[in-house]
Amino acid sequence: MKVIIVGGVAGGASCAARLRRLDENAEILMVERGPYVSYANCGLPYYIGGVIEQQSSLLVATADTFRDMFAVDARTDCEVVGIAAGEKTVRLKDRTTGEVTTEPYDKLVISPGAAPVRPPLPGIDLPGIFGVRTVPDASQIRAWIDERRGRSAGMDSYTGFQTRKRQLRAVVVGGGFIGIETAENLVGLGFEVTLLQRGEQIMEPLDPEMARYLERHLDKNGVHIQLDSEASEFRQAADGSLEVLTASGETYPADIVILGIGVKPETALAEMAGVEVGERGGIVVDDQMRTSDPDIFAVGDAVEKTDCMTGESCLVALAGPANRQGRIAADVIAGRDSHFRGTQGTAILGAFGGAVAWTGLNEKTLKRRGDTDYEKIYLYPNSHAGYYPGATVLAMKVIFRTSDGRLLGAQAVGKEGVDKRIDALAMAIQLGGTVYDLEECELSYAPQFGAAKSPPNFAGMVGANVLRGDMPIGHWDATDGAFLLDVRHPEELAVEQLPGVVNIPVDELRGRLDELPRDRDIFVICRSGQRAYYATRILMQNGFTARTVAGGMLSHEIFAML
Amino acid sequence: MKVIIVGGVAGGASCAARLRRLDENAEILMVERGPYVSYANCGLPYYIGGVIEQQSSLLVATADTFRDMFAVDARTDCEVVGIAAGEKTVRLKDRTTGEVTTEPYDKLVISPGAAPVRPPLPGIDLPGIFGVRTVPDASQIRAWIDERRGRSAGMDSYTGFQTRKRQLRAVVVGGGFIGIETAENLVGLGFEVTLLQRGEQIMEPLDPEMARYLERHLDKNGVHIQLDSEASEFRQAADGSLEVLTASGETYPADIVILGIGVKPETALAEMAGVEVGERGGIVVDDQMRTSDPDIFAVGDAVEKTDCMTGESCLVALAGPANRQGRIAADVIAGRDSHFRGTQGTAILGAFGGAVAWTGLNEKTLKRRGDTDYEKIYLYPNSHAGYYPGATVLAMKVIFRTSDGRLLGAQAVGKEGVDKRIDALAMAIQLGGTVYDLEECELSYAPQFGAAKSPPNFAGMVGANVLRGDMPIGHWDATDGAFLLDVRHPEELAVEQLPGVVNIPVDELRGRLDELPRDRDIFVICRSGQRAYYATRILMQNGFTARTVAGGMLSHEIFAML
Repeated sequence: MKVIIVGGVAGGASCAARLRRLDENAEILMVERGPYVSYANCGLPYYIGGVIEQQSSLLVATADTFRDMFAVDARTDCEVVGIAAGEKTVRLKDRTTGEVTTEPYDKLVISPGAAPVRPPLPGIDLPGIFGVRTVPDASQIRAWIDERRGRSAGMDSYTGFQTRKRQLRAVVVGGGFIGIETAENLVGLGFEVTLLQRGEQIMEPLDPEMARYLERHLDKNGVHIQLDSEASEFRQAADGSLEVLTASGETYPADIVILGIGVKPETALAEMAGVEVGERGGIVVDDQMRTSDPDIFAVGDAVEKTDCMTGESCLVALAGPANRQGRIAADVIAGRDSHFRGTQGTAILGAFGGAVAWTGLNEKTLKRRGDTDYEKIYLYPNSHAGYYPGATVLAMKVIFRTSDGRLLGAQAVGKEGVDKRIDALAMAIQLGGTVYDLEECELSYAPQFGAAKSPPNFAGMVGANVLRGDMPIGHWDATDGAFLLDVRHPEELAVEQLPGVVNIPVDELRGRLDELPRDRDIFVICRSGQRAYYATRILMQNGFTARTVAGGMLSHEIFAML
Repeated sequence: MKVIIVGGVAGGASCAARLRRLDENAEILMVERGPYVSYANCGLPYYIGGVIEQQSSLLVATADTFRDMFAVDARTDCEVVGIAAGEKTVRLKDRTTGEVTTEPYDKLVISPGAAPVRPPLPGIDLPGIFGVRTVPDASQIRAWIDERRGRSAGMDSYTGFQTRKRQLRAVVVGGGFIGIETAENLVGLGFEVTLLQRGEQIMEPLDPEMARYLERHLDKNGVHIQLDSEASEFRQAADGSLEVLTASGETYPADIVILGIGVKPETALAEMAGVEVGERGGIVVDDQMRTSDPDIFAVGDAVEKTDCMTGESCLVALAGPANRQGRIAADVIAGRDSHFRGTQGTAILGAFGGAVAWTGLNEKTLKRRGDTDYEKIYLYPNSHAGYYPGATVLAMKVIFRTSDGRLLGAQAVGKEGVDKRIDALAMAIQLGGTVYDLEECELSYAPQFGAAKSPPNFAGMVGANVLRGDMPIGHWDATDGAFLLDVRHPEELAVEQLPGVVNIPVDELRGRLDELPRDRDIFVICRSGQRAYYATRILMQNGFTARTVAGGMLSHEIFAML
C-alpha cells in the first residue's frame, strides 16, 4: 500500500507517524510545500517577539526524523501541482529544482491547513504587511522589525548609549488568536500597537460581555483596541512607512501591519482532486476523515469539522483536533474502525500574564440557533483560597440546559487558573456531565491551588440551585423597570451605586421586609451574587417574588460596557 | 424545628448556612468549643510560617456573620458536655463562665472533626511539642518560635547588625499534609528540619514510587527525610531544648517538635449520644449523613466516608467532602432527598514551588484488595509545550481497568500544572470516563499552558494503545532476567546505562533486527517510553515478542530507589 500525505505539519505529520506505527509495510510519502515539517505554528507569535529565541526551537521534528524514525519519505519544498483522482496519481513539483514527477497512491491524505485571509484591499501587497502562518513568515517579520528597530534607534552623542529615536508603531488587523498574540509580542518589542477589529468584539468564540474583559486587559497593557474599525486601504507614506485607513475614515500610521483577520481553509488541493468542499469553505469529510472520494482523506484546519455540541459543520483551526484527525485517518487507512467525535472547540489565549479560555457552546450560538433551553450563570471565584496571598479573581460564565442540567459551555478569564477550570469543565462537557455532577465534583484543594469549593464545584452548586428553583435568577438585560434591591453594605454603595436601587444590607433584611413590595418581582443585587442569593432565599420564604441578578455588580460592569 | 449543630468549622458551618437558606423558620444553634468558627484550618501551616501574615486572614466568617447573615445562634467557647439522645437534649458548657445549660433539639448535627494523633510516648507532653489543628495551636507555635528565634539571634558587637547565634532545629514527626506543609514553613523560617517517617514512604495516599519524587524534592529543599524512623521518646535537654529519640536508636535535637502523625476522628460526642462508631474509628453514617440515631447527623472529618471507587468505608480528612456533607445533612433535615456520593480522595500538596496531587485509587489499594483487573502507565509530559520557555517535566502515573478501560486513579508530581491535570482526570473519574474518552479529550492548548496533546489526552492514547494490544507494556519489577533492548542514542547511554542491555537506536532498528532474539520477550527501553513504543511497533510487526517498559529510564530512577 502506498500512501501519500500532503502537508507535513500537525494533521499530516500525526497521520504519517501513526500510520507507520500501525503498518510497518506501508509505503508512506509525506510532502510539504514549505521548508519545514512538523513545526510549532502556535509558537510563531512568540518567535516574532523573541520570547522563543531560536528558530530551531520551533522545529519539533525534521524531515530526517521522519525518514530515520518512521521510515517515511518526507520531502520538503515539494508542492502538489496536480491530482488525477481517477488514475490515483499526484504530480509533485520539487520547488528547489523545478522538477515535476508523478507519484501513484493507494490512499491520499491532504492536510494543507488554512491560510491567513488577505482581503483584496488597495495596498494589501505593500511591503510591511504580513500574515503569520509559517516559519519563513515569522523570520521575515523578525527581519523587518530588526531593521526598523535599528533605524529608529540612535546614539546619544554624550553618553554613547543607544537611544530610541522614534516610537515604532504597529497596526494589527483582526483580534483573533494570531492578532492578539502577535500584538502582545509587538508590545514586548516596544511597539505602540493598535488593534483594529471589524465587529463589536474581539475573539469571536467568546460572548461579547466576556470579550469585554479581554479588551480591557489588552488596552490596559498597551494594545489600543479599536472596535467597529474595518481596514479599507493601505498606503505607503513618503518616509516609506505605512498607513492603514479604515472604512470610518480614520488613518493609523504603522511601521508594520499584521493581518490577523482569520484563516481560510486551503481548498486548492481538494479542487484539483475534485472532492467536495462545503458551504463553510472547508473540505467535507465523514467522521473517518474520508472525503467524497473514498481513497482521499483530509484532516486539519482545511476540513469542516462537526461541532460536538450542535452537530453542525464548523471550521476550527486548532492543533489538538488536527492531530486527532491525523491519527484517525491513519487508523482508518490501516483498516481500523476509528471515528472522530467532532470538536467541542476548547481553546485558550494567553496575553500579558492573563488568560481567557472557553469550551463548548457560547450563548451567541444558542441564540443563533433559536435554542432557549439554557440558563447561564456568572461567577467570580478567587483563583485560590482568599486567605492565602496572591489570590486573584476569575470571571466565569457557565451555560447549561434548563431541562436536564447538562453542561453546554463555559468561558473564563483571569490571571491564574483559567486553564485549569476550563479543562475540568471541558472534561465534564465531553462526558455529558450536568450541573448536578459539578455540584458533587471533587477537585484538588490546597490553599495555593484552589478553594474547598472549587470554581467548577461552585458553578455546579449555583446551577443546581437555579434549576431546583432555590435561586431564580435574573440578568442585567432584563432589569429595566424592575424593582432593584441592593443588599450590599452602605460603604460598598458609597463607592458605586446604580440609580433607583433600594438598599437594605442582607444583615438587616429580615427586620426590614415591610419596606419591600409584595406585588413586584424583586431583582436582588450584591457584588458577585452570593449575598443576593442569601437575600433571595429570605425573600422567597417570606412570600416575596425575588430573583438573584447573576454576577451582581461585577457582571453589571461588563454588561454596562456592551 | 430546632437544630443544634456541634462544631462550627467546615462541615458544621456549611450545614448551618445551607440549612438557613433552605428553611428560614428553623431555629439553628451552632456551638463551637474553640474561640473561632469557620476558620481556614488548611491555612494554619502557612500562618505558622508567616506566609499568611495576619491571624484574621484565617477567619473566613465569624460568629457575628452567622448571627447577622444567617440568623444562626452561633456560640464559641461552648462545649457539649452531655447528650441525652432519648430526651433529645444536649448539655452545653460555656467555657468562659463555666455555666452549664440544657438545650432541646429536634435534629442534632455533630461535626467535631479529627484530632492530631498524640501517641502515649514518654515525654509527649513536654513543652515545645505541638499538634497543628486550631488557630490557638498555630498562635502558640508562632509564639514559641518567635521566642526561640529571638533568643538564638544576637548582636554583632562591631556592626550592630543582628546575627544568628545558633541554627534552630525542628523535628517533624510524620510526613502527611500537616507534617510536610509545616516542615516547608519551618524551613522558610530558617529552621533545620528533620522529618521522621515511620514506614517506607511519606504521604500515604501515594504509591511508594511516586512518593520518592516528593521525598527527593523535600530533601533537596532542606527537609531531611528519615524513613523507617519511628519516634519513641521525647526528652528535655539540659539547655531546655528537646530531643527526639527513635525506635532505631537515633537522637535528634530539636527546638520545636511538630506532630504530624495523622488525625483521629473525634468520637466523644458520638459516644455520649450512643451512636455507632465504625471499625475505622469514625462515626458511621448513611449516605444522607444520618447516624444510627435517625435524629442525629454527623459530617466532616469525624465520620467514615464511602470511597466512591471501592465502596469501602474510609477516613478522609478533607475540606471539600466535609463541606459537601454539611450541605447534604442540611438538605436532608430540610426534607430533601440528597445523597452523598462518597469521596474519590482527590487531594493536592504544595511544597517548595512544586506539587503532588492524586485522585481515585492508588495501586496499593488495588493490591490490598487483590484486584488484578488494572494496568498502570507512567508518563513524563512537559508542563507546557517544550518549544516555549520554562517547560518542566511532570511525572504521572495513571491506573485504569484492563477489562473496560475505565479510569481508576492518577497521581502526578511536578513544578507546574499538576493541579490542572489531576483536576481534569478527577472529573473524568467521577463521570466514569475511560482511557478511550481521554484519547479524544479536548483540553485547552496554547504554548504557555499545555501541549496539543495534553497530558490527559496523551495518557488516553497510551492507555488505549496498551488495551488495544498495540503496545504491550512491561514494568521494571518484571525485568529480571528479561532481554532488555535500549533504543536510545549512544550519547544518552554514555550518561547512564543499565548493565546487560543491548543498545540499538530506534533509527537503526529496522536494519539491525537480526541482532535480536526471536525466542525471547524483548523489553524495550528509552528515556520516557515514547521511542520504545515506536520500537515495539517495529518489532511486533516483524514477528518479535516485545513490550515497552512503562516510563523508561525516568521510571527506572524511582523504581531503583524503592
